[in-house]
Amino acid sequence: MLRISTRSSIITPSKSFYLGRLIGARYQSQFAPNIPKVQKGVVFTEHNGELKYTDIPVPTPKSNEILINVKYSGVCHTDLHAWKGDWPLAVKLPLVGGHEGAGVVVGIGENVKGWKLGDLAGIKWLNGSCMSCELCETGHEANCEHADLSGYTHDGSFQQYATADAVQAARIPEGSDLAQIAPILCAGITVYKALKTANLKPGEWVAISGAAGGLGSLAVQYAKAMGYRVVGIDGGEEKEKLFRSLGGEVFVDFTKSKDIVADIQNATKGGPQGVINVSVSEAAITQSTHYVRPTGTVVLVGLPANSVVKSDIFSHVVKSINIVGSYVGNRADTREALDFFARGLIKSPIKVVGLSKLPEVYKLMEANKILGRYVVDCAK
Amino acid sequence: MLRISTRSSIITPSKSFYLGRLIGARYQSQFAPNIPKVQKGVVFTEHNGELKYTDIPVPTPKSNEILINVKYSGVCHTDLHAWKGDWPLAVKLPLVGGHEGAGVVVGIGENVKGWKLGDLAGIKWLNGSCMSCELCETGHEANCEHADLSGYTHDGSFQQYATADAVQAARIPEGSDLAQIAPILCAGITVYKALKTANLKPGEWVAISGAAGGLGSLAVQYAKAMGYRVVGIDGGEEKEKLFRSLGGEVFVDFTKSKDIVADIQNATKGGPQGVINVSVSEAAITQSTHYVRPTGTVVLVGLPANSVVKSDIFSHVVKSINIVGSYVGNRADTREALDFFARGLIKSPIKVVGLSKLPEVYKLMEANKILGRYVVDCAK
Amino acid sequence: MLRISTRSSIITPSKSFYLGRLIGARYQSQFAPNIPKVQKGVVFTEHNGELKYTDIPVPTPKSNEILINVKYSGVCHTDLHAWKGDWPLAVKLPLVGGHEGAGVVVGIGENVKGWKLGDLAGIKWLNGSCMSCELCETGHEANCEHADLSGYTHDGSFQQYATADAVQAARIPEGSDLAQIAPILCAGITVYKALKTANLKPGEWVAISGAAGGLGSLAVQYAKAMGYRVVGIDGGEEKEKLFRSLGGEVFVDFTKSKDIVADIQNATKGGPQGVINVSVSEAAITQSTHYVRPTGTVVLVGLPANSVVKSDIFSHVVKSINIVGSYVGNRADTREALDFFARGLIKSPIKVVGLSKLPEVYKLMEANKILGRYVVDCAK
Amino acid sequence: MLRISTRSSIITPSKSFYLGRLIGARYQSQFAPNIPKVQKGVVFTEHNGELKYTDIPVPTPKSNEILINVKYSGVCHTDLHAWKGDWPLAVKLPLVGGHEGAGVVVGIGENVKGWKLGDLAGIKWLNGSCMSCELCETGHEANCEHADLSGYTHDGSFQQYATADAVQAARIPEGSDLAQIAPILCAGITVYKALKTANLKPGEWVAISGAAGGLGSLAVQYAKAMGYRVVGIDGGEEKEKLFRSLGGEVFVDFTKSKDIVADIQNATKGGPQGVINVSVSEAAITQSTHYVRPTGTVVLVGLPANSVVKSDIFSHVVKSINIVGSYVGNRADTREALDFFARGLIKSPIKVVGLSKLPEVYKLMEANKILGRYVVDCAK
Repeated sequence: MLRISTRSSIITPSKSFYLGRLIGARYQSQFAPNIPKVQKGVVFTEHNGELKYTDIPVPTPKSNEILINVKYSGVCHTDLHAWKGDWPLAVKLPLVGGHEGAGVVVGIGENVKGWKLGDLAGIKWLNGSCMSCELCETGHEANCEHADLSGYTHDGSFQQYATADAVQAARIPEGSDLAQIAPILCAGITVYKALKTANLKPGEWVAISGAAGGLGSLAVQYAKAMGYRVVGIDGGEEKEKLFRSLGGEVFVDFTKSKDIVADIQNATKGGPQGVINVSVSEAAITQSTHYVRPTGTVVLVGLPANSVVKSDIFSHVVKSINIVGSYVGNRADTREALDFFARGLIKSPIKVVGLSKLPEVYKLMEANKILGRYVVDCAK
Repeated sequence: MLRISTRSSIITPSKSFYLGRLIGARYQSQFAPNIPKVQKGVVFTEHNGELKYTDIPVPTPKSNEILINVKYSGVCHTDLHAWKGDWPLAVKLPLVGGHEGAGVVVGIGENVKGWKLGDLAGIKWLNGSCMSCELCETGHEANCEHADLSGYTHDGSFQQYATADAVQAARIPEGSDLAQIAPILCAGITVYKALKTANLKPGEWVAISGAAGGLGSLAVQYAKAMGYRVVGIDGGEEKEKLFRSLGGEVFVDFTKSKDIVADIQNATKGGPQGVINVSVSEAAITQSTHYVRPTGTVVLVGLPANSVVKSDIFSHVVKSINIVGSYVGNRADTREALDFFARGLIKSPIKVVGLSKLPEVYKLMEANKILGRYVVDCAK
Repeated sequence: MLRISTRSSIITPSKSFYLGRLIGARYQSQFAPNIPKVQKGVVFTEHNGELKYTDIPVPTPKSNEILINVKYSGVCHTDLHAWKGDWPLAVKLPLVGGHEGAGVVVGIGENVKGWKLGDLAGIKWLNGSCMSCELCETGHEANCEHADLSGYTHDGSFQQYATADAVQAARIPEGSDLAQIAPILCAGITVYKALKTANLKPGEWVAISGAAGGLGSLAVQYAKAMGYRVVGIDGGEEKEKLFRSLGGEVFVDFTKSKDIVADIQNATKGGPQGVINVSVSEAAITQSTHYVRPTGTVVLVGLPANSVVKSDIFSHVVKSINIVGSYVGNRADTREALDFFARGLIKSPIKVVGLSKLPEVYKLMEANKILGRYVVDCAK
Repeated sequence: MLRISTRSSIITPSKSFYLGRLIGARYQSQFAPNIPKVQKGVVFTEHNGELKYTDIPVPTPKSNEILINVKYSGVCHTDLHAWKGDWPLAVKLPLVGGHEGAGVVVGIGENVKGWKLGDLAGIKWLNGSCMSCELCETGHEANCEHADLSGYTHDGSFQQYATADAVQAARIPEGSDLAQIAPILCAGITVYKALKTANLKPGEWVAISGAAGGLGSLAVQYAKAMGYRVVGIDGGEEKEKLFRSLGGEVFVDFTKSKDIVADIQNATKGGPQGVINVSVSEAAITQSTHYVRPTGTVVLVGLPANSVVKSDIFSHVVKSINIVGSYVGNRADTREALDFFARGLIKSPIKVVGLSKLPEVYKLMEANKILGRYVVDCAK
């Protein structure tokens, strides 16, 4: 390795650190007792087809996977897209959806390191990646061309037992409330990552466009916990009330403001240093390039279909702004986002129903009638 | 200041460093002998009016300024805009244009620090800024709302004696060829800054869109000197020849390529990590968001009028790309860009004519008939 | 400047931004009415000589300076060193000390931009710098070889009227309590800068060594406001109580701990990502290299005389840690640190006495009998 | 995952990018034909015991490993330490040493992704890591507490067939000269990583302390290729000649200089922005803290036993320098360092002998009689 001059018998208080110990694979898989062969899950076999709550086989983890007994799973708008098949990404069929699953490790593949039976674990959007491309090497696993996606290309968390790549599976802090933490596994991580991408200093202003929605209300709380000042954009007094209860500082109501750009720039003395676009309005997203502070950063994170952000080039250059895309978080982002939750800094307002009621939740989602986040209890 | 425990009589090899010496203002201005009262310059009094080569008074530097005897000045397309008045920024009238002036310090205001008579100095686009806003504090002086612009809001370098704010004036290395260095003062600094903004590691790929033009050919050389691999996009065999002579590695000819995006991505195994858009084609700029590598950076630097960059939001997020505006360089960028030139790493192909011929150069520029860069000799 | 293609008549909501307005120098100085010729101040003419509260002339600002009517000034241990002359930096003699002065602008030099009479302004350690070296260009003005230091090489804030370079003078937010803000001008900015230098993410651990002292108690509050988790090291139950009241999370009492390194590493699950050494104990500083987390950052900021930090090279490499020095803040750091105070996030526990009592404060400092921070009221 | 508004049928030129394809594990291992059961290797069973060139079994790759037919292996000073057992890290016994092995993939474990039979692959110091701690998550696998080290805790490259974790194994570009690339796998990556750690901009100065040694001569070439200016410190005219032939710019000969600090600072106008300490002299390392430029970075990378770096705290703070440890490179560093080699920018001066001669190479190493780098041909 490196050039070393002479004999060494160094002793320092941190000596134990570099006494590297080889903890390799365990060479054989492990399972908790009493894992059934058959379980309950919700499955569909064609797009827009029946969502069937039924008996399905318990999957067997591959040598690099763990098997998780899913206790609770959040329901995300993306699940609707997987079912409809209206995204430009091919979906596995038949499919068990879901990518916000929180549960307990009950099986461990023979090649898995760093997990033991009984650990709390989460199933997230990125189930696994190639781990061999330059994107995986540099912490951008979600951008990997060969990403394996829970509830999309890999059976997800709308079942009682699900598999996850051991490297990517989320490590849920001991003692966590598994129902409440479920939505953090996707919505929470996503907004946390977007906030990191905005590259702000504590004390700087961040605008959350769509501040009182599902993602927005989590974003406000994370922003506050990270030391930022929050300006929220949304519509209506109830939304403002929610926003303020979460620690938001300035609210701009688009149903009332006569000049949103001016209102935001005045309240923040020149515009926010960062903007998180969780809103999926194309017009609102383009508008955010107008009110962002010179040298500031506009983060794209919501995914309106068939939409483009348009930025005036002259202004973009002279103001020297950034428009940057933020996808889902990587393993470090996941650990960090869960840690904020575990410390009690993030509240996750959920409504829990049995897994058997999932088809009805899809109907509500389709009708755009959901406030807050549904979580399914996989035991029911 | 800081908490210090006891008596100190430290002596280290670098002791001299922190023996701070107060070198304040000199309390009185200084001038070289024989500065005339009247000089030659090119002035216009209304937009699109006569460009008059005539006798004008030599300006007096303010207490914070230096007076520069301009030897040579580059001519830039921006000078045409100042004359036409077709930009959304008000122009001083009557005006002496020019913002790429290289010369010698012959006068020093009473409050100036760090300059002495006989130093080589340059007049650049940013003549001065407020030095009191948060943008100035953080090295973004060019973005300052109160920026004072040479040849635009402040009489520029198309005269024999010009004034410049002592803090912003460029420090030209001793022994430099003043004719050759003139275009570096704007074109060179601008492309160097854009390359820094792309935030690349040595060994990574950068695409230069418009690689064989005036800005592009400087960008290729800077990119090469900075350790990047260069893919150039331009049209025609002569352009390719020039590109390769400057150290470019891969050339994509838009007059021949059937799929520019694919050609660039194949040549760079996934797309360049950075793109410098010196081309002013709106379509080419938007196209650069397609071929940039996932997690890569598209830099906007050219200024097409009335143009927007359009980016597909879904792709922007899933590829996690960045579109960032880069304006002109700050003081550190200026020093660094000039240093690359002084080390012989950048060639600046120029055509020198007398200052009295400047009106003819404007005509050529207007007719879009200029190849390379004109430099005027202010003595003629 | 840049290549522009055609006529432009762009109108965007942020148009006003780039309508740069030239606001140059005002060409003549300005003064508030009724500025006296003579004022009260504390001056000494030789090291360890008499500290004389007496009548001295009101200084005249140079063309680049403002004149500040100092209302309050903090007293710092550095003032003692200036008086003793026991540092390896030459001191101006005779000298008016003080570098934490808060007051009101009453005079403005002819070349000053961005200040008006009546603004609140602060005198800080760095009074001015050359503004022409590469360190000044890159925001490291404090490291400038020609730094001009308040109360050290430039008469400071222990007088009723003091001068400050307009570029460096601190901009105190309107409505601030000038007595409370005085210590922020040095102590606050210094710890804030150190925390920035530690380069932490919100949610990470920072250890403050000397957490309950003058600098430490400010550091704890800034760290908390910046979203970090704080482990404090200090001695005694009263200190622990103070630490916890400021928002500290884990306290390690060096008078009780049997293994400080282990205690800190256990409490933080592997060591803090950053350490701020405001303590001036050489042993404690070296110890911080043992407990810092792998890849973490040890910040040196306190200035024990004749002391060295020693780091075991093998461990330093294998743990890949950083040891970085942080001096005082620059203009942006100053603005930011004051903004945290203005938002009510930082409390500054002070004891106010008349300026005429300053010699007694020096005696207390010399005897190491000061708890908290003394502030002098310059009107008394 | 994310909030999506409506149906999407986006088609963009980069559409193929996000059409994620699931390429999971292959579910069964693969082997090239004709792999023998027994091979030649050099093994020792106790520290300082016999280095025996003998028949040993060919190992079987675990499900996460590849089997490499090692063609050439570099010999590193670290191999001597593994044999002597004089480091504070426990060594596997009996052991096959070596961690610079270049060869061809002949076996693939069932759980391996991204490798195929016939690929070129390298065995490097870090054979594998836990992939589950926060250090692994953030690209600091080498700092992982459970690092598995080739030729130290895992049988290495001094045999004809060796195993490597598929995630960490180096991807050697097709067509590479396997003998020449062998030393890049440790020495090259290590200096490249150190240069990255210095965090320099192209055009800045880097000092290489020990510039003409094995690591140093590689460091000079990498620094040059990365766009830095190189000042080398070493002793003797032959060393200077070598240094200059590699592209070094300024040479300071410690056998002749009367003031090394002054000579370096003068040549670089204030000191180098970065220093790479490949020399293992404690005095030279401490000296580098004196000549580094203010705000610059001293990188520790060589590993003198029982040594400390000492830095004067006053100067460390006032100059605001950084002392940072750099260990071996991660996967991205490896790919990048190999790419520089593949592009022909790095020459690796080697002497090739048969594997059976390895015991004699150890003797030369022990006697400190090696110039350049020995590489063993595993077929002989």
